[in-house]
Amino acid sequence: PGGRPTIQSEDGKYAFSIGLAFHEDFGGFMGVTPRAGESKGKFNSFTSNARRLRIPFTFRYKDWVANITPDFGASNNDGTVGLYEANLNYAGLRNTILTVGYFQPRVTEEDSESSNEFEMMERPGITDIVRSISAGDARFSIGGLHYEKRWWVGAYFTGQQFGARNASGYYGGDGAVSDSQTGGTFRAAGRPIATKDWDLHLGVSAVSAFKPNNGTHGRSFTLSQRPEVNLGEDSLLGTGAITNVSQVWAAGPEAGLRWKNLVIKSEYYHIGVNRSHTTSGQSLSNLNFSGWYVAANYTLFGTPRAYNYKEGAFSAPGVKENQEFNPATGHWGALEISGRYSETDLNSQLNSSNGVRGGNQIVWSGGLNWYPNRHFRVMLDYNRFIDQRTQNDGTVNIAGRNGNSVAARVQAAF
Amino acid sequence: PGGRPTIQSEDGKYAFSIGLAFHEDFGGFMGVTPRAGESKGKFNSFTSNARRLRIPFTFRYKDWVANITPDFGASNNDGTVGLYEANLNYAGLRNTILTVGYFQPRVTEEDSESSNEFEMMERPGITDIVRSISAGDARFSIGGLHYEKRWWVGAYFTGQQFGARNASGYYGGDGAVSDSQTGGTFRAAGRPIATKDWDLHLGVSAVSAFKPNNGTHGRSFTLSQRPEVNLGEDSLLGTGAITNVSQVWAAGPEAGLRWKNLVIKSEYYHIGVNRSHTTSGQSLSNLNFSGWYVAANYTLFGTPRAYNYKEGAFSAPGVKENQEFNPATGHWGALEISGRYSETDLNSQLNSSNGVRGGNQIVWSGGLNWYPNRHFRVMLDYNRFIDQRTQNDGTVNIAGRNGNSVAARVQAAF
Amino acid sequence: PGGRPTIQSEDGKYAFSIGLAFHEDFGGFMGVTPRAGESKGKFNSFTSNARRLRIPFTFRYKDWVANITPDFGASNNDGTVGLYEANLNYAGLRNTILTVGYFQPRVTEEDSESSNEFEMMERPGITDIVRSISAGDARFSIGGLHYEKRWWVGAYFTGQQFGARNASGYYGGDGAVSDSQTGGTFRAAGRPIATKDWDLHLGVSAVSAFKPNNGTHGRSFTLSQRPEVNLGEDSLLGTGAITNVSQVWAAGPEAGLRWKNLVIKSEYYHIGVNRSHTTSGQSLSNLNFSGWYVAANYTLFGTPRAYNYKEGAFSAPGVKENQEFNPATGHWGALEISGRYSETDLNSQLNSSNGVRGGNQIVWSGGLNWYPNRHFRVMLDYNRFIDQRTQNDGTVNIAGRNGNSVAARVQAAF
Repeated sequence: PGGRPTIQSEDGKYAFSIGLAFHEDFGGFMGVTPRAGESKGKFNSFTSNARRLRIPFTFRYKDWVANITPDFGASNNDGTVGLYEANLNYAGLRNTILTVGYFQPRVTEEDSESSNEFEMMERPGITDIVRSISAGDARFSIGGLHYEKRWWVGAYFTGQQFGARNASGYYGGDGAVSDSQTGGTFRAAGRPIATKDWDLHLGVSAVSAFKPNNGTHGRSFTLSQRPEVNLGEDSLLGTGAITNVSQVWAAGPEAGLRWKNLVIKSEYYHIGVNRSHTTSGQSLSNLNFSGWYVAANYTLFGTPRAYNYKEGAFSAPGVKENQEFNPATGHWGALEISGRYSETDLNSQLNSSNGVRGGNQIVWSGGLNWYPNRHFRVMLDYNRFIDQRTQNDGTVNIAGRNGNSVAARVQAAF
Repeated sequence: PGGRPTIQSEDGKYAFSIGLAFHEDFGGFMGVTPRAGESKGKFNSFTSNARRLRIPFTFRYKDWVANITPDFGASNNDGTVGLYEANLNYAGLRNTILTVGYFQPRVTEEDSESSNEFEMMERPGITDIVRSISAGDARFSIGGLHYEKRWWVGAYFTGQQFGARNASGYYGGDGAVSDSQTGGTFRAAGRPIATKDWDLHLGVSAVSAFKPNNGTHGRSFTLSQRPEVNLGEDSLLGTGAITNVSQVWAAGPEAGLRWKNLVIKSEYYHIGVNRSHTTSGQSLSNLNFSGWYVAANYTLFGTPRAYNYKEGAFSAPGVKENQEFNPATGHWGALEISGRYSETDLNSQLNSSNGVRGGNQIVWSGGLNWYPNRHFRVMLDYNRFIDQRTQNDGTVNIAGRNGNSVAARVQAAF
Repeated sequence: PGGRPTIQSEDGKYAFSIGLAFHEDFGGFMGVTPRAGESKGKFNSFTSNARRLRIPFTFRYKDWVANITPDFGASNNDGTVGLYEANLNYAGLRNTILTVGYFQPRVTEEDSESSNEFEMMERPGITDIVRSISAGDARFSIGGLHYEKRWWVGAYFTGQQFGARNASGYYGGDGAVSDSQTGGTFRAAGRPIATKDWDLHLGVSAVSAFKPNNGTHGRSFTLSQRPEVNLGEDSLLGTGAITNVSQVWAAGPEAGLRWKNLVIKSEYYHIGVNRSHTTSGQSLSNLNFSGWYVAANYTLFGTPRAYNYKEGAFSAPGVKENQEFNPATGHWGALEISGRYSETDLNSQLNSSNGVRGGNQIVWSGGLNWYPNRHFRVMLDYNRFIDQRTQNDGTVNIAGRNGNSVAARVQAAF
């Protein structure tokens, strides 16, 4: 981005830059009272989490680019150091980037936005679940993307996430993986209306794990999601490990509309889990899950959100240099307000003995984002989450659980 | 510091720098013989430890600064990678820095010095214990500091350390934290005498954990300390987990005096642990611990130690460029000699069944520091430690244990 | 290397640079079928591994240099973050580098090559085993090297590897180390023939662990090796922990010959394990292992491999700027083909009850390396490995096991 420290050779053949995506969160939970038989669970009244501490190093020689981005932050419990990406790219074809290595192959509109530009601190639950199937951060990928002013398309063959063969640590959790996952992603997006006051975004995303990891539980898959905040809390929604899984896929439409300072977005995804027969030969029917959200965002002052056709997604408000926060001149930068309704349903075939009760989660969110200048941001989010009971192995949510969170983020991006 | 690689935009609005704090230690222990019933413990005759391998990245846009400092070293057993700091700062007010994020909020004179400038390789025991209560490295902090030529003041609200909710890893140790610690720090220091030959430093520091972590042992707190060297050795001094803790605090005075090439320092701290009642309703009396040290340092040749009013603390000897180590010209840089007596007492209410026998540790230290030039340093320290018996769960020190260490550090600072 | 981003002060006193060694591997195994009684083991049909993701930071002030190189890759299972090196160097003597700190002290011809310039993706088995005794990456070292145009010599006192006192993590594995290993390395190499068409390399390397780690199994040592590919697979060759070890050493000759575009290399090493008596007083005879390889490499097009006298080893093909890959001009960079036979024998005294059946591994390898330009490379390797049975604690190889691997590496080096 503009303002990233860069060294370039005089002839332009070499370029090197170091960036920063700094997201630190703090806040806590209220009213997450356990019901009879439930354990209290981890819902800190106040704590902090280094959500993202990424330092992108980029080495370019002519059309060839190597990216490596360590991440000193972590999704929910900071303290583990890992990798956001490490990939090689060939940019010798017009408006096209070919990539191999650990990468974030973009799927869904929300996931196509930079995390520096999110409307709320976290993505909607369904987006995070769809990402987790065969996309997400530091996913081994081979593929490419192409963009024009009015459309965007990208497709990748994908493998494991960095660290996935470890028993613990960054993206780890199963040290017994004898055969890694393979999968793929596809996304196409268009922008049929693009005027000064209006932008219409339409798109479709699809992901699939052709063959899940073969590990401790054989070929298994787990879908789970936190209440759209990440401050060390327990998950209240999750399928547990689904076994005998032959394939997992998800697909759905994206829609977004900008009118002047207002952006409205909505996406829906369906998830299918194909199962093979059990070891005793019983064939297992497929499972179906789904989720959707609708979000509205309004820029109160400052340059409003715009459409970024290189990403096929909306980007954050800007702050002109003469409008930066400055008590002396009375300027305040930019301020926006957001609201979102999000629902994720991980129940399937509840009447069957082979069904899965992963629960259902509804989250109402509201938030304010303040941009003192183009590199810094402060976010404040309130979430109200309503979770139906699940049948996981834990005892944190066995009777349904509701609660509230208030969280703030301080952000710097270079 | 001077000599740190920096890129700056021509208009001065942007600056980016990368620094280095490189401390590698090696050495071993002699005569740490176990008494009857004691296990041998870990006291290597020769080993090494990457004590600090910090690479500070600083991104500045006008008055706003983002700092992130990965640390590839570790306190006692290298191999774990973590974070020294990651914070955002506003420096738009004169001689004032406002900070939010993972930070080292400074308390005590020793902790206010940069680790690049220490007299001995390690801080005195009582300083490290006081730091551990609610300050220390990578501590979530919100607050600020202000300095003038003759005084310094700083205060912070503090939370958990980076990684503290993890079962293991950097600053981790308890994965069951359901409510994080909150606390605070305060320090004020003055410099009543400041002449060419004399500097007098006086100060006061206070810390408190208002509410300790609520984890595996409920709200508990542990105070412990190594024998003022960090080479993979076992601790001989420690309270074990004190349970039912409602608050921990410490406070005490700082004094330092420079006369020409000689610096003498001393600090004393009292620690109070307030306990609530046990689960069976028995009320528990408060515990009291304390410690102090006195240190003397003399610069044999080179520019002597000076007072740094931006830190409210003393800084290391300097080396003028024409006095740098150079066998050709017969120059040797700078050399200083240090000695220290340090005592830490973690016994309280030994006659009560609710008392704590954490032990008492006395450490006599002597050391030499050689500075071939302004960026490099070699330290050599000898410690004699004398530990009374403790009642921890281990069997390394149950009858009292004495010993010696000889350690060296090679250092680079940019 | 050339093209590494560097900042230098105008007077030349200061220099700072950031480099990159980016090696990402992907591929899988075929035909590693278990025999009766054997467990299947981990041999992924497709997976990936971030083999090396090293970012070297170098700070120089006059003749003093500090190197620190984090590594975000890992030998066999990525996900763990550690250190390749962190050392201080004095370069004030002609053609000499004196070093202290975590370092890779070079032994054997293969290990003296930069990993960016390897003929095959992995070193021969015997080289990796010899390295592991008292050299390898991030090994605490004190010593130096000296080179002339016709010869090279280096010797180091060595200690533990970074992290070796930890129960897990980077180079860890035993948290009970009460006394760290000490050892040493020596290497001397010469170049008796050096003409335009011919280069002859002769050398000798020796390593010793004078005193192995004293840990969970007392003073013990383990020799083991993967089938010369690193994609998360199980090891099929290994002695298990040999106990009561007083010393381990290895020594052997190096030979290499270049004729125009052809390079042929061969090395042989003998390993001796000296054992003390058992706790019951029985004296244990010494163990003897060995291994060797022969490799041939031919540069099909591009600048051929050359001799690097600063390393005392061969270096990779080069690509002149006007021969870089460019579909428009029909240039393709450089391409080389390699073949290797490698044998490692970890059986000793099979007829004695105190003998060790670590197995015997033969690996036939063939590979192609394509260099589109001087900074990027793609490798493709095929391995056929033939393993005799071992007597380790696992059940993956108890009846002998053969198999094949196909692996690719994408590489960037700055």
